[in-house]
Amino acid sequence: MIIPRRVRQIRPGRVILSGIQPTGIPHLGNYLGALSNWVKLQKSAEPEDKLLFSIVGWHALTLPQDPASLLTARNDMLAVLLAIGIDPNRSILFHQDHNPHHTELSWILSCIAPMGKLRRMTTWKSRLATARNSSSEDEVDESMLNAGLFMYPVLQAADVLVYKATHVPVGDDQQQHIELTRDLADIFNRTFKGTSPLFPLPTYVNTPSKRILSLKDPTSKMSKSSPDVQSRILLTDNASQIQSKIRAAVTDSIRALLTILKVARVAKAYESQGHGTLKRDVAEAVEEFLKGPRAQFNRIRHETTYLEEVARRGAIRAIEHSEVTMMEVKTRLGLASAVV
Amino acid sequence: MIIPRRVRQIRPGRVILSGIQPTGIPHLGNYLGALSNWVKLQKSAEPEDKLLFSIVGWHALTLPQDPASLLTARNDMLAVLLAIGIDPNRSILFHQDHNPHHTELSWILSCIAPMGKLRRMTTWKSRLATARNSSSEDEVDESMLNAGLFMYPVLQAADVLVYKATHVPVGDDQQQHIELTRDLADIFNRTFKGTSPLFPLPTYVNTPSKRILSLKDPTSKMSKSSPDVQSRILLTDNASQIQSKIRAAVTDSIRALLTILKVARVAKAYESQGHGTLKRDVAEAVEEFLKGPRAQFNRIRHETTYLEEVARRGAIRAIEHSEVTMMEVKTRLGLASAVV
Repeated sequence: MIIPRRVRQIRPGRVILSGIQPTGIPHLGNYLGALSNWVKLQKSAEPEDKLLFSIVGWHALTLPQDPASLLTARNDMLAVLLAIGIDPNRSILFHQDHNPHHTELSWILSCIAPMGKLRRMTTWKSRLATARNSSSEDEVDESMLNAGLFMYPVLQAADVLVYKATHVPVGDDQQQHIELTRDLADIFNRTFKGTSPLFPLPTYVNTPSKRILSLKDPTSKMSKSSPDVQSRILLTDNASQIQSKIRAAVTDSIRALLTILKVARVAKAYESQGHGTLKRDVAEAVEEFLKGPRAQFNRIRHETTYLEEVARRGAIRAIEHSEVTMMEVKTRLGLASAVV
Repeated sequence: MIIPRRVRQIRPGRVILSGIQPTGIPHLGNYLGALSNWVKLQKSAEPEDKLLFSIVGWHALTLPQDPASLLTARNDMLAVLLAIGIDPNRSILFHQDHNPHHTELSWILSCIAPMGKLRRMTTWKSRLATARNSSSEDEVDESMLNAGLFMYPVLQAADVLVYKATHVPVGDDQQQHIELTRDLADIFNRTFKGTSPLFPLPTYVNTPSKRILSLKDPTSKMSKSSPDVQSRILLTDNASQIQSKIRAAVTDSIRALLTILKVARVAKAYESQGHGTLKRDVAEAVEEFLKGPRAQFNRIRHETTYLEEVARRGAIRAIEHSEVTMMEVKTRLGLASAVV
C-alpha cells in the first residue's frame, strides 16, 4: 500500500473521532464527502493512532424522525460504513446511544457551559431550516427550537472529549462546535485542576469535502432532504437508476460531477461532442465507482447477526475507552473517590 | 403500627419518588421538612407501593461545588437517610449519578422540550441568587446562567419519568417542575404513540412542609447557605451546641421552634416565665428529638463498606427499574427493535 506523503506526516498516538447521523441511505455527496474521508483516514493512520467512528442516534433525535425509518437507517448506516471499508477490527465503530457516557458527560459539560456561549452557536438555524424545507434561515426562529437542538453542540463536545479525541474531522459548518469543545475542555481543565489538564484540546481537521451539486439545481448541494429524489444518486442506486438520473440532470450538475470524478481533465474533449455522450460516460463512471460498495452493502445490510455483533463489540470497546475518562472526570468533580 | 386514616387512603401500586441534593449535613429545617416526610411515606405506604429516594449528584453540579466537600456530602447524605430511618430493603435508596438512564432520558426529553417552556421556569433565579448570597432575584440575570441550571427541570422530569413515578413529594418551589414533567410526558405520549401511553402523568404531592425559621433572622427560613452558622441547628450538633445556639437565638425564632416541635400548646404557660426557661426547654426538646438520629448518623457515616454496599445495591435496583422504561422509550423512538 502506498501512503501519500501528506498523510504520512502525522503525530503518533492521535485519537481521531467522527460521527454521522443515521438518516437514510447516503448519497454520492455524503460518500465523496465525510465517508470516503473516514476510509482514507483509516488507511493512512499510524498503528498507534486510535480511530472512532460513531453513528450518532442521540443527535438524530434533535429533529423529528419517523421511528420505523430511524430504526432502518441505523442498521443501514452501519452496513454502509462496513461496505465502504471501515474495518471494525481496526476502528471502533459504534452507535453513540449504546454508550451511556455521552449523555453523562454532556450533562457535566452543560453545567460549565455559559448560556451566552451556546446562544452564539448558529447551526440550529440551518438544521431547522433544512428540516422545514425553508429556503432561508430567516424563516425559522427560536420559537420553533427545542432544547435538544439548542444543546446539540454540548453533546457533540461530550462525544469528542469522552474519548479524549485529539483530531476531529468534520464539515466546515461544524468548526464552531469544535471551537466550543475546546472552550469547554479548557474551562473544565481550569476549574477542576489535577496533576495535569484532564482533556486535550481537540484539533479541527478540515476534511477536503468535495462539493457535490444537486442534479436538478446546480445552485445547491446534493441533499438528503430535497423533495426531488431525482436530484441525488444514492449508494443503493443500480446502473439503470444512475443512468436515468444522470440523463435527466441539468448540464451544470454534470460538469460538477465530472469534476468530482476527477475526469475534469477530459471534460474539454466532450465539448465538441453531444451531452448524450457525456452523460453516458458519467453514468458509467459513477456505476463503476459505486458498484463495489453497493454490492457489499446489499449483502451486509441483511446480515442481522453480523451487524448486531459489530455494534455490540463496538459499544464494548467504546465504553472501555470512555469509562477511563469518566472515572477521572467523576473523581475531579467529587462524584467518586480516587481509585488508589 | 397505627396508620393514620389520612395516609391510608392511597391507591394501590403508587410509585413514589423524591430526591435531595448532597450538599452538607441537613439542618433541623431539612429534617422536619422533606426528610421526615420521606420516613412517614415509607411507614404509611402500602406493600404494593414502590418508593425511590435519590441523592441527586447531577443536580448539585448545576452550581459550583467544592469537589472534596461534595464527596463528603454524598457519603453523609446517604448516612443521614439511613440514620433517620429510610430502610434500604423497603425503599430504593440510590445515587442518581450511579444510574446512567437519568441523563439518557433527559437528553431524549430535551429533544421534545420547547425552549419557550423552559424559559418560563424561574427556579434558576432563586438558586442562583442563593448561591451568590444575593438577597434579591433581581440581582441575578441570564448572563450568569449555565446551561445545566437552565436544563435542571428537564433532568428532574427524567428523574421522575424514568421510573414511571406516579407521586412526587417535593417542595412548593418545585411544583412548576412537576407541571413541566407532566407536559413532557404528555408530549412524548402523543408523539410516540404505542398501544398505550408510555408515561403516567405524575402527581405533585404537597408535603406539609414545616417552615423552620432562622435562629438569627425570623424573616427568613433556616438555610444551609446562610453565612451565620449560629442560625441553624445541624443534625450533627451535640447537646451543648444546640443549647448555645438556642440560647443566642432571637425570640421570634424560638416561637417558631415551639410551634414546630408541637409544644405550641404549652407556649402560653411560658408567657409568665422568663425566656431562659423557654430556651432551656426548647433546647432539651430538640436534643431529645435529634439524639437518636445523630447517634445513628455518627455510627453509620464511618461504616464505609456498609454505605458502599447500600449504594451499590440501590443503584442495581434503580437500574433494574429504569431499564424497562428505557427499553420501551428507545423502541418507540426507533433507537431499538421491539423485544419479541
